[in-house]
Amino acid sequence: MKFTDLLAKAWQKNNSLLCVGLDPDPAKFPAHLQGQPDAIFRFCAEIADATADFACAFKPQIAYFAAHRAEDQLEALIARIHERHPDIPVILDAKRGDIGSTAEQYAIEAFERYRADAVTVNPYMGRDSVEPWLAYADKGVILLCRTSNAGGSDFQFQKTGSGGTPLYEVVARKVAEEWNATGQCALVVGATFPAELARVRALTGDMPLLVPGIGAQGGDIEATVKAGKTATGTGLMINSSRAILYASKGEDYAAAARQAAQDTRDAINRWR
Amino acid sequence: MKFTDLLAKAWQKNNSLLCVGLDPDPAKFPAHLQGQPDAIFRFCAEIADATADFACAFKPQIAYFAAHRAEDQLEALIARIHERHPDIPVILDAKRGDIGSTAEQYAIEAFERYRADAVTVNPYMGRDSVEPWLAYADKGVILLCRTSNAGGSDFQFQKTGSGGTPLYEVVARKVAEEWNATGQCALVVGATFPAELARVRALTGDMPLLVPGIGAQGGDIEATVKAGKTATGTGLMINSSRAILYASKGEDYAAAARQAAQDTRDAINRWR
Repeated sequence: MKFTDLLAKAWQKNNSLLCVGLDPDPAKFPAHLQGQPDAIFRFCAEIADATADFACAFKPQIAYFAAHRAEDQLEALIARIHERHPDIPVILDAKRGDIGSTAEQYAIEAFERYRADAVTVNPYMGRDSVEPWLAYADKGVILLCRTSNAGGSDFQFQKTGSGGTPLYEVVARKVAEEWNATGQCALVVGATFPAELARVRALTGDMPLLVPGIGAQGGDIEATVKAGKTATGTGLMINSSRAILYASKGEDYAAAARQAAQDTRDAINRWR
Repeated sequence: MKFTDLLAKAWQKNNSLLCVGLDPDPAKFPAHLQGQPDAIFRFCAEIADATADFACAFKPQIAYFAAHRAEDQLEALIARIHERHPDIPVILDAKRGDIGSTAEQYAIEAFERYRADAVTVNPYMGRDSVEPWLAYADKGVILLCRTSNAGGSDFQFQKTGSGGTPLYEVVARKVAEEWNATGQCALVVGATFPAELARVRALTGDMPLLVPGIGAQGGDIEATVKAGKTATGTGLMINSSRAILYASKGEDYAAAARQAAQDTRDAINRWR
């Protein structure tokens, strides 16, 4: 199924705009998983099972696997999510970006090896660096636009052209008006900048927006939902990682994650 | 040894500004390697041994390994280059870029797992996404500035501010004037844009520039060297990948690669 259709179904089925970010940090795992060879897989799989009723997407961050030589555990995790939770799309957060021939290799990595439904991509290298991803017709391509970190302003907020349009708006327009002919595109816009989230929503119609930055990064849920939702109260994948994964440091971590996911979903729904 | 010192020594020892790009595509390997489980490692190791006398750096592109589940072969390759060719720095071409906590994981991947001497990084997310890389004092951080592909103009050539400064110049200035306090930074500037290469050279003093785009991508060697060299005739890592790796499709591929590397080095030196 197309990523965008899968996402639309998950929004409805779970009545949720919550994306559960899977950023596994073994130093924060409960004691009984410490030192286990497949601890990363087990931790994430338990989190996925516990939160699947309240999520519209799962988003594993590949760096947390690569730093620990755990590519095999990432493959196993995504395969397991597809098997047990086929209604929830998996976004591989990789933020790749390279010339076409190299982007083809990255697309093989994300879509054929890991079988992700969508991937995050850095737009800095422009259209031909994005086309190899779009060649996979069922897959989603989620481009960085206005990121949630402080340094995001260094270049994304540069004023361009005679009108002083900030660069992130140039990116949003380019994606919405030129790159999204097949309806596969989405954008990353941080929750830490609600005014800019509202601007991107105005520029992109009903395009899905992946919104990191609530929880540990300080973004406000009410402001995020009001700024980013579509007319039908969807259009968002609001990501939470650390606040869910590490809701408890004990053996009850999965139950605590489930409660945190439900609470976050409900807190989001209050403003839809 | 610091990446920049290692690079300066390699420029001198091999009288070379040639960076040998290791983009292994198994479909292009000679017949006797086809189907071998460690074909990627063997192919690249042979190329490295054959070209080490004429290179100032090796640059493995991680996507070509990741697409084939060959992370272990990439680790083995870099370890072997360090052992056999300790005078030649290894640049991991990964073009990562993410928020600080994730960038820390990517830096572990590049510098601790793969033991690269330098890494390519995408600057779109700004300063705090780059700092975790700079925390490794001996390592080089090579930021994308003006890339060699056609789509590079989509955003890198956006005119910014009241003076209409193109974005790639904003990136070059930011890196040269603010991020490079420790002397660890370098920039990627494509050979396909010699005028812009000259502009970046003017803005960055003696900063090393990694220059892809000669050979298969069409950049001109004379124009590249004249535009990009420093006053002492160095400052460049001019990358060639496909023209060297696939100089012959037969069993003589390593010897053909050696000849192509020597010829390219000499063609570069003609204009220093």
